[in-house]
Amino acid sequence: MLRSIATVSIAGTLPEKLAAIAAAGFDGVEIFENDLLYFPGKLAEIRQRAQDLGLAITLYQPFRDFEGVPRSLMAGNLERARRKFALMHELGCDRMLLCSNVSPDSSPHFDQQVEDLAQLADLAQQQQIVVAYEALAWGQHVNRYRQAWERVRAVNRPALGLALDSFHILALGDKLDQLDDIPLEKIAFLQLADAPWLNMEVIEWSRHFRCFPGQGVLPLVEFAAALLRKGYCGPWSLEVFNDGFRAAPSGATAKDGWRSLLLLEEQAQAALRQIDPELFSTAPLPQRQAIEFLEFAVNGAEADELARWLGQLGFSHAGVHRSKRVALYQNGGIRVVLNQQPNSFAAGYHEQHGASLCALACRSDRPQALLRRARDFAYPSYQGQVGPNEHEIPALCTPDGSLIYLFGEQTSEVYQDDFHLQPVAAVAGPRLEGIDHLALAMPASALENWVMFLRTVLGMQADSEQLLPDPYGLVRSKALHTLCNGIRLPLNASQSLDTLSARTVEAYHGSGLQHVAFSTADIFQAVTAARQNGVALLTISDNYYDDLATRFSLDAEFVARLRQHHILYDRDPVGGELLHVYTQPFSGGCFFFELLERRGGYSQYGAANGAARLAAMRQG
Amino acid sequence: MLRSIATVSIAGTLPEKLAAIAAAGFDGVEIFENDLLYFPGKLAEIRQRAQDLGLAITLYQPFRDFEGVPRSLMAGNLERARRKFALMHELGCDRMLLCSNVSPDSSPHFDQQVEDLAQLADLAQQQQIVVAYEALAWGQHVNRYRQAWERVRAVNRPALGLALDSFHILALGDKLDQLDDIPLEKIAFLQLADAPWLNMEVIEWSRHFRCFPGQGVLPLVEFAAALLRKGYCGPWSLEVFNDGFRAAPSGATAKDGWRSLLLLEEQAQAALRQIDPELFSTAPLPQRQAIEFLEFAVNGAEADELARWLGQLGFSHAGVHRSKRVALYQNGGIRVVLNQQPNSFAAGYHEQHGASLCALACRSDRPQALLRRARDFAYPSYQGQVGPNEHEIPALCTPDGSLIYLFGEQTSEVYQDDFHLQPVAAVAGPRLEGIDHLALAMPASALENWVMFLRTVLGMQADSEQLLPDPYGLVRSKALHTLCNGIRLPLNASQSLDTLSARTVEAYHGSGLQHVAFSTADIFQAVTAARQNGVALLTISDNYYDDLATRFSLDAEFVARLRQHHILYDRDPVGGELLHVYTQPFSGGCFFFELLERRGGYSQYGAANGAARLAAMRQG
Repeated sequence: MLRSIATVSIAGTLPEKLAAIAAAGFDGVEIFENDLLYFPGKLAEIRQRAQDLGLAITLYQPFRDFEGVPRSLMAGNLERARRKFALMHELGCDRMLLCSNVSPDSSPHFDQQVEDLAQLADLAQQQQIVVAYEALAWGQHVNRYRQAWERVRAVNRPALGLALDSFHILALGDKLDQLDDIPLEKIAFLQLADAPWLNMEVIEWSRHFRCFPGQGVLPLVEFAAALLRKGYCGPWSLEVFNDGFRAAPSGATAKDGWRSLLLLEEQAQAALRQIDPELFSTAPLPQRQAIEFLEFAVNGAEADELARWLGQLGFSHAGVHRSKRVALYQNGGIRVVLNQQPNSFAAGYHEQHGASLCALACRSDRPQALLRRARDFAYPSYQGQVGPNEHEIPALCTPDGSLIYLFGEQTSEVYQDDFHLQPVAAVAGPRLEGIDHLALAMPASALENWVMFLRTVLGMQADSEQLLPDPYGLVRSKALHTLCNGIRLPLNASQSLDTLSARTVEAYHGSGLQHVAFSTADIFQAVTAARQNGVALLTISDNYYDDLATRFSLDAEFVARLRQHHILYDRDPVGGELLHVYTQPFSGGCFFFELLERRGGYSQYGAANGAARLAAMRQG
Repeated sequence: MLRSIATVSIAGTLPEKLAAIAAAGFDGVEIFENDLLYFPGKLAEIRQRAQDLGLAITLYQPFRDFEGVPRSLMAGNLERARRKFALMHELGCDRMLLCSNVSPDSSPHFDQQVEDLAQLADLAQQQQIVVAYEALAWGQHVNRYRQAWERVRAVNRPALGLALDSFHILALGDKLDQLDDIPLEKIAFLQLADAPWLNMEVIEWSRHFRCFPGQGVLPLVEFAAALLRKGYCGPWSLEVFNDGFRAAPSGATAKDGWRSLLLLEEQAQAALRQIDPELFSTAPLPQRQAIEFLEFAVNGAEADELARWLGQLGFSHAGVHRSKRVALYQNGGIRVVLNQQPNSFAAGYHEQHGASLCALACRSDRPQALLRRARDFAYPSYQGQVGPNEHEIPALCTPDGSLIYLFGEQTSEVYQDDFHLQPVAAVAGPRLEGIDHLALAMPASALENWVMFLRTVLGMQADSEQLLPDPYGLVRSKALHTLCNGIRLPLNASQSLDTLSARTVEAYHGSGLQHVAFSTADIFQAVTAARQNGVALLTISDNYYDDLATRFSLDAEFVARLRQHHILYDRDPVGGELLHVYTQPFSGGCFFFELLERRGGYSQYGAANGAARLAAMRQG
């Protein structure tokens, strides 16, 4: 596949953009006209620079408002095309995007439009240029791809083909299910963009909120599969207008774009072939993934304090590492590792971020596949130093530099070999079942990088986005989960600098753990035991419980129990319930803990209680 | 007028909100239910706190989804109301907002709805509570205020009235022109919000983009005038859902809200009475306003360098202040003052912001009225120290702490008395006509504060907002101008931290001058003379001019002249033209200069060339 991207998709000056696009691994680039206009050098310099970088210039775009203009403007329009063609020759580009006319003054007559397009095609033919005609979703008379095709067919010139843009097609609810009568050679260009679902004017939606395939909700996989089935083998080119990308570091954005094309190709092939995933170029996803342990980077005092907290939460001290200053704690199947080894990854992480989650371990049926996927999607991996006879555990590097260790499903021998294990003492405390989810706080600019990482390497799925009202601003929360639901990661980001999420990011100097949610089968047991052990819970306002009774028509005694234990409550439309409590923040760091019980298949994260939590945390 | 605001309109915890609302001068407050839910104390505490602050609790809101619910839910619904009424008694509030039902399951039958509302009214009557029924713009069956009124009329109970909300009414294109048959006593509450025009789903528009009256484009004045005419004298209450306000300092937001009500009242009275503006409580606006001079705070080296720049731009040294280290420069009618007086306002400003514009002087036919308006709208003013026999010039404090000196229209004696004037030497250089506009860079969070200041005190009007593409992010640009067009101020703000606008804000540690645009009647003379004097202009790419010729069908010779002088060009739809150049940034500070010629009534700021300018500035 020839992977391409439009310069408009990323930030920077034109030379910066080209460098970032080449570095990300793209084969080609669409040049957006404005980037050229403001470039202070000759076009030939751009041609040379692209060539030096190994980038084909796949498209010059856009050319606008041509077909059906008032007759008095036609000569000027052709002259405009001539000049652009001359410019394209200087640039070394032989393909131009023509957008359907948006002018209310343009002619609605099919024949007139065809006549004009034919003239343009003849001119292009002379210049050995191909014009790719695109139906803009807000075109005046041509706004569906079938309409554009009818005109291209009627023109019937080799120099005029069709440009298919996933956004323009999918945003209007169209599908690529009518390709049969379009000859493959008439598909002159393919542009790809995804988008979140926004009920707004399509032109605004298009110009500010497009994103890379996999970051939005449009049915891109089906779209791409239709083209693969058709046999399309021209460039796949990203064209994304996104206010955030325009302001983000261009290198990371371009890399994510390249990854998104790889993911899309993988998914489209899977959809198309519906055959054994082993056949894909990228490594197949594991069927089962779960969190094996959490690793906190802490110093001496923090380690003691966190160990005390873990004890209160029912964790026992289970062992120490044979060669490192690393302690293991366990509650049922949940393991937590406290790492204070000097000159280690954890020590470096601690130096940069303070007491924090520096790694998590992922247990799966295909750890090597995850490692290979990371390589395929161009993410770095990590191999730490090990002592003699200790296990070598490979790790993925996440976008913020923390690690994900990759374990197979037989993990017990790792502990036996690498740790001095001790018999787990029975500890009075909450009976916990597992790690339900980890909530991460991150800068708004990093959120899409995280989404791309989790979607590509771990194959996670994104839930819909929530807006949580912090007393000092709104927080975007986007949760991702593995298909098996073994790992769930809500990602929180806010533009405002005063929200709790933003302050967490500030304190960590970057992304980091906001809280760990432990699941339990009996929240009342867990909370009672935790409180008996001295766990300080977040206090929830009485007024919340007064309202709860009214809102959900709950039994008074049940509400009284919730109130007594500061348990928050939510119910989904089909009757699933969430009961959850939060601890006060851990005194040596920025994170806190949640204990939760899901009932009746409740699958969300209690966003309805987000405001209550945030207000409680801000009111002390 | 009893001025009120909903707690949801500003950031913070409930106690913080109440304090900010009282400090801003409001008489009352609407309590938004969620603020209560998360308040960790008793309701009686809130009652007491509001009372101590002198705030009436004007409304408890919202109560939702009542009328026409499935019969099985009716008993629960009444119980819900009973509990809310009990809560309101604790709170000391006797008025509740009821939103029209949004549930698809609710009954479409008028009689059923009326029967339910009557039951609620009877219950409210027993509890001495008034229910104000509001048609939500997205209500399932009731979404226009006339529909709500038909039901209130049919219920015909004293405890049920109508809530009118400007957003819900105006967003659907309705007007308050059908109030005649609604008895005054049936208008139970009035909520006010404005909004920018956004073509998006009304519920999203309402929940994220509302703003204070005067900050948006809805016809609030006509709306408020209709209520004044009707004789409404209940609370005017702001209810604004705005993501920015949720993240902004609550004190400034609340104060702006209070000011917006004052401005709205003034404007509504003017619209209503259409009589001599002298009758208003606030001071009438001047008819004529213009910039008398610009004052830069500079230190020694910067003063020399800026004086050199001014000389190159055709300014002559016109005098020095009698008692201060202040120099006056003049080009035609444009005056610039360089202030390096120690221990002065300028010195303090310089210390905080570096070389910068610290004040401008506004010449008008009613300087005292502007001073009074500042007082009426609760903005601070400033009176500097003067030497013996020098003029006392009052000044307004802008939202960033810079000053606007207020001069009458006879200014010459000020210069004669306060300065040692010297004969203005003829300087070879650009012939300038006036100060066309000042572009200010500011944090996004400060933009609405500036808009409110300029709208209220100076009576400026806002043009529509532009988005300028900086290579490293988008910049919002909102221009305001006085009615007479004597003062024009484009305000630039960006969320991104890397745009030029954001970097200017960072360098100034706050808002500040981005550039001064001087107007000329002959741009070619001005540019030629400036370049001869050594002014370093911003270099514009050749590719820009190649495109310009094509885009506007311009004469080749004309384009060659533009290209030769790095002059940018724009044309509006009715043929008005803008020719403008920018200088390189002033080496001692963050600002730069623009020279421009407007032709044929061009009234904008060349936003179409914003990208060209920003790219040129970033590419060096």
